[in-house]
Amino acid sequence: MKIAVLPGDGIGTEIVAEAVKVLNVLELPLELEEAVVGGAAYAAQGHPLPDSTLQLAKDADAVLFGAVGDWQYDKLERSLRPEQAILGLRKHLGLFANLRPALCYEQLTHASSLKPELVAGLDILIIRELTGDIYFGQPRGRRTAVDGHFPGAEEAFDTMRYSRPEIERIAHVAFQAARRRGKKVTSVDKANVLETFQFWKDVVTEVHAQYPDVELEHMYVDNAAMQLVKAPKKFDVVVTGNMFGDILSDEAAMLTGSIGMLPSASLDANNKGLYEPSHGSAPDIAGKGVANPLATILSAAMMLRYTLAQPEAADRIESAVRAVLAAGLRTPDIYSDGTRKVGTREMGDAVVAAI
Amino acid sequence: MKIAVLPGDGIGTEIVAEAVKVLNVLELPLELEEAVVGGAAYAAQGHPLPDSTLQLAKDADAVLFGAVGDWQYDKLERSLRPEQAILGLRKHLGLFANLRPALCYEQLTHASSLKPELVAGLDILIIRELTGDIYFGQPRGRRTAVDGHFPGAEEAFDTMRYSRPEIERIAHVAFQAARRRGKKVTSVDKANVLETFQFWKDVVTEVHAQYPDVELEHMYVDNAAMQLVKAPKKFDVVVTGNMFGDILSDEAAMLTGSIGMLPSASLDANNKGLYEPSHGSAPDIAGKGVANPLATILSAAMMLRYTLAQPEAADRIESAVRAVLAAGLRTPDIYSDGTRKVGTREMGDAVVAAI
Ligand SMILES: CC(C)[C@H](C(=O)O)[C@@H](O)C(=O)O
Ligand SMILES: CC(C)[C@H](C(=O)O)[C@@H](O)C(=O)O
Repeated sequence: MKIAVLPGDGIGTEIVAEAVKVLNVLELPLELEEAVVGGAAYAAQGHPLPDSTLQLAKDADAVLFGAVGDWQYDKLERSLRPEQAILGLRKHLGLFANLRPALCYEQLTHASSLKPELVAGLDILIIRELTGDIYFGQPRGRRTAVDGHFPGAEEAFDTMRYSRPEIERIAHVAFQAARRRGKKVTSVDKANVLETFQFWKDVVTEVHAQYPDVELEHMYVDNAAMQLVKAPKKFDVVVTGNMFGDILSDEAAMLTGSIGMLPSASLDANNKGLYEPSHGSAPDIAGKGVANPLATILSAAMMLRYTLAQPEAADRIESAVRAVLAAGLRTPDIYSDGTRKVGTREMGDAVVAAI
Repeated sequence: MKIAVLPGDGIGTEIVAEAVKVLNVLELPLELEEAVVGGAAYAAQGHPLPDSTLQLAKDADAVLFGAVGDWQYDKLERSLRPEQAILGLRKHLGLFANLRPALCYEQLTHASSLKPELVAGLDILIIRELTGDIYFGQPRGRRTAVDGHFPGAEEAFDTMRYSRPEIERIAHVAFQAARRRGKKVTSVDKANVLETFQFWKDVVTEVHAQYPDVELEHMYVDNAAMQLVKAPKKFDVVVTGNMFGDILSDEAAMLTGSIGMLPSASLDANNKGLYEPSHGSAPDIAGKGVANPLATILSAAMMLRYTLAQPEAADRIESAVRAVLAAGLRTPDIYSDGTRKVGTREMGDAVVAAI
């Protein structure tokens, strides 16, 4: 089984190194091959997603990804900026299903902004469509307005769109995931305003007919943003489009208070996937050895479970992570009185030891 | 000064009645005229925004609006649904600037989902552009896809767009508001993905040159959704587009824990405005006399301040609201142990008495 390892920028290299250590200790027949991506790839090869990196990712069975982005690349034209690497990988690998668990670990409940009783035991799965919507819709650009409030003025525009098969396949992913969990799907739309999301709602409702054992609820995106704050535990599986999913999955992750703990999977139609932490490249703490590697380590566990069909190995990693938390080890982002503050490497070593 | 009073559906009639009572006690030369809107207007006249209602709103100096929407109208075709009334009013009256304060009242801090120290004293102003973006952009509809992932498939689409003058005028509103407050503007965009919001960011940056005394910060919308949860007090004025503003203003309102207290203003280029509570029509509690009228009463105060140039009258209302809160009166939505639970009418009467 071949894994493309793409550490990227900022803390990416540090946290991916720990996940690789953990994978290596499992003694599975894994072949890991590393490549540059993001700002690091731009610096080395002039493009955030070089052909060789994309080819490696295509040839691999799964991709383990760190994070991309650093201030020094902010002024580049959009097509050369680090985030184009992740957008390009999603598109070229057809990774349409983004799974982002928002889970509140018992020992970290206090880290949340929310009152403990609202988040204790929280376990939501946000499923975000990842290759459609306004992210990739054409046409887009700048032009002279011909209508609207100011005809003749300069304007910029983008196209939001979803086709029936795109909605169908992500709906199936959501209903199937719900079957293995709390049997409830909340489909988030803005059908009261957008044609795209009236269609979304219609198609999700149609697909639901095949899953009579799963409850389906529809919710407007503005209301979903509120209900996540008010009563997050009422959700089980949330499914939505690329743009709304970008916003809601980050909101939900932050609700747990420990975004440094949250993995993510981006899957194609055959369960091939890219796995990355839910947090970003955090250039402000890069190179200091203080980043939390657990989200990346847990992403490696997701990879073993979803793509590499090694559920026991995934279990071993996840149990080891719970064990180090129970033992009181904390990186600074999740530190609190009475626990032991450790660095990135020490945390990775502890997980390895626990395995 | 002529005010169009549009109570609408659900709790709309009850809460607007209390605001009208409060306005009447001020003994100002106000002429109030009522009309149907939303589902009530559809039921009575076959359209959620009848011509006569729109004309009344156009002729008035300001509009006091309750809320629209009720389950019984959910199955109507989109153009006849209650929310078309509010979209139509915004469009036809040119109400491009939506001001939504997210304020945490001292006595209600405990009502928030967030830990008290994170929201005590919270005072953010969210400024949402209200007549552009993907809400009104053309073309939109359904068609057969000619490209994308599934050419030949049925698809739905919408157009996101902003022209330079639209961005300029809302940016001016934000910078001017910040001047009267904490002197900081956070402009929320998704410039890393959307042409529309790269343009937004560029134009806001240009307008900022005229306000050297105000600090400007740019933030991606996903990050803004997180920072609102993590550290809401870091914000002063937030300015963003119609779609992102819909989501973030509701999220911010819910953070306060007392959305029943939050007014809003939607202004045109001449400060003519529509004023409404931030919450919805709550059909589940309609007619029970338990809805909180304070958001609507405070919306009337905003109307006096922004459109009718009666700041002293606005002060009187706002002080009266603070007084009834200090006296321990609470509608069920903000009730807690040790306070006195009152109904809609009793709360309105208390404000009148305090004035
Ligand atoms: C970097 C950016 C393009 C990306 C997105 O918007 O999808 C990120 O926010 C994410 O959620 O992975
Ligand atoms: C009812 C709906 C069309 C409306 C909107 O999306 O603008 C509402 O959510 C609001 O924020 O006023």
